[in-house]
Amino acid sequence: MEYRKIKNEDEDRDPVVEDVEKSFSLSGAVPDNNLPSGGETKIDSHRTKAKWKRKSVVTLALTILTSSQAILIVWSKRAGKYEYSVTTANFLVETLKCAISLVALGRIWNKEGVNEDNRLTTTLDEVIVYPIPAALYLVKNLLQYYIFAYVDAPGYQILKNLNIISTGVLYRIMLKRRLSEIQWAAFVLLTAGCTTAQLNSNSDHVLQTPFQGWVMAIVMALLSGFAGVYTEAIIKKRPSRNINVQNFWLYVFGMCFNAVAMLVQDFDAVMNKGFFHGYSFITVLMIFNHALSGIAVSMVMKFADNIVKVYSTSVAMLLTAVVSVFLFGFHLSLAFFLGTVVVSVAIYLHSAGKIQR
Amino acid sequence: MEYRKIKNEDEDRDPVVEDVEKSFSLSGAVPDNNLPSGGETKIDSHRTKAKWKRKSVVTLALTILTSSQAILIVWSKRAGKYEYSVTTANFLVETLKCAISLVALGRIWNKEGVNEDNRLTTTLDEVIVYPIPAALYLVKNLLQYYIFAYVDAPGYQILKNLNIISTGVLYRIMLKRRLSEIQWAAFVLLTAGCTTAQLNSNSDHVLQTPFQGWVMAIVMALLSGFAGVYTEAIIKKRPSRNINVQNFWLYVFGMCFNAVAMLVQDFDAVMNKGFFHGYSFITVLMIFNHALSGIAVSMVMKFADNIVKVYSTSVAMLLTAVVSVFLFGFHLSLAFFLGTVVVSVAIYLHSAGKIQR
Repeated sequence: MEYRKIKNEDEDRDPVVEDVEKSFSLSGAVPDNNLPSGGETKIDSHRTKAKWKRKSVVTLALTILTSSQAILIVWSKRAGKYEYSVTTANFLVETLKCAISLVALGRIWNKEGVNEDNRLTTTLDEVIVYPIPAALYLVKNLLQYYIFAYVDAPGYQILKNLNIISTGVLYRIMLKRRLSEIQWAAFVLLTAGCTTAQLNSNSDHVLQTPFQGWVMAIVMALLSGFAGVYTEAIIKKRPSRNINVQNFWLYVFGMCFNAVAMLVQDFDAVMNKGFFHGYSFITVLMIFNHALSGIAVSMVMKFADNIVKVYSTSVAMLLTAVVSVFLFGFHLSLAFFLGTVVVSVAIYLHSAGKIQR
Repeated sequence: MEYRKIKNEDEDRDPVVEDVEKSFSLSGAVPDNNLPSGGETKIDSHRTKAKWKRKSVVTLALTILTSSQAILIVWSKRAGKYEYSVTTANFLVETLKCAISLVALGRIWNKEGVNEDNRLTTTLDEVIVYPIPAALYLVKNLLQYYIFAYVDAPGYQILKNLNIISTGVLYRIMLKRRLSEIQWAAFVLLTAGCTTAQLNSNSDHVLQTPFQGWVMAIVMALLSGFAGVYTEAIIKKRPSRNINVQNFWLYVFGMCFNAVAMLVQDFDAVMNKGFFHGYSFITVLMIFNHALSGIAVSMVMKFADNIVKVYSTSVAMLLTAVVSVFLFGFHLSLAFFLGTVVVSVAIYLHSAGKIQR
């Protein structure tokens, strides 16, 4: 089950980048984009289809990008150790996301002109909540260093699946959106299925996790889930606001946080060896991939929700393992197969549960 | 995951006894005992409750008996090797079941008198199908010796979970009874959950099973499922016929088959050392337990169905493992925990799926 190392390595490498894109949010009235309205006119039906299509495209993009992200990390690891400063790469990812958002905005301004929804200028009221989830991730990432005193890395990967449950619970509480009983059952299955797929002969160690380890794992899952759901709330609070403006402000704070991290952790390395020391073609590919998947996460938050995001990244985890069989000759275990079956049924039930409510 | 040895040992010990009680059946019109009829009178409602209670009692009995069966086997194994002839024990189990059925019948005759439904005499038309499932089990048990050329014992335990799927499929085809889509999903989860709960570090060997091994495992699962569903059909074909009469005829054929097995396999041992050589208190307990669980299986076939039986024995498997922790100090694995979660959700979905259809 070597593919687990992928996610693990990912975690070691840039927890900030990986999660910052989920951040920033404010609880409030959230419109439901998912339920088609009854008694549709032809235009309504067209709009519903367009929404469904957009939702599918961003979800598919997130799945593929997340999956290829993990594969790139394995590839780069095979090619040798990371020689570059991770914080510089994280900073570049945030910068690239800002730049992409600005380019997209520029094209929209050319086409539609600047209006209330797509202007870049903002109010304190709008922007003040944006750094909050980033702060939550900072706390979570600090905790991450301490949890390894109680749990080993593969054990941590297993415990990370608590994120799925915490996202579901906080989604329900903070966004006040309901899942049917069948959908809750599906969510429990998703958690169990993902964990099963990651089982290997050392997994039972996690059962010996001391009490402090469990508490920290649960707190981290709650922080991560809270930040994700908060991001969705902040993005959906202003449904008509252009997503590229919202992203721009999200990523500006990402740049700030990562600039500070860079100065604290890698000031000497950057000063002595230069900003781009140790960069290779694959480093550049990874930066582009991280930037695009960050944007995909924001899009999923805007046009779908955290639940879709969780399903999407879970499928990406399974997809990565399957692709790794062909690319790197990894072996799939029976546990992986069983986990995949359970996750597949969970996805079916999530949609079947929706129809029946 | 030493508890797997329980089932495995069980398998090694008396595959005929364990499965013969599921046997004997004929496809045909089957009344649906499960769905409460609409527009109930007070008497109807009372009847529905009584039916539901009877169904619950037999299901609970089957679960507890199956679970304690496995525990007795571990206990007897700890106490030493089997010194007695297994075929004599199997024969006694069938004889005991016959005797219990006759005693129950005697009490009914005393109370209600002999009538069309509870008379012991039968017609060729009624009795002719009774040996068929026993014959199917004979073929299955012969195959069992050959499959071990391709699969090891723990692998066989994993593959045995195919029985769950085959029972569901044959239940649908032979008895023409429908499961809702949610219930099918639950059935897939039950299979995946049971298999997950049995995973250990050697489980991946099963993926190296050669093609012939898979074919044999599937054929055996189909034979076992077919025999189980056939038994249900034969018992339900005459809904008003007393279950004790039906059991008597089932077990008479069981006695015949086991008598032949005893003569072929253990003629010398019985002749030289005596019929009861090597019997101990625990052997007697096991024989009583097997007889009672055999009768419980028949009752579940009569008052519930094969689907309930599969859920019941799956729960028994999990229960055995938990009880073994306290009795024998076994350790439960993370895989066991995850499998239990999936099986629990499957049980919930099976009943939730029923309500919604």
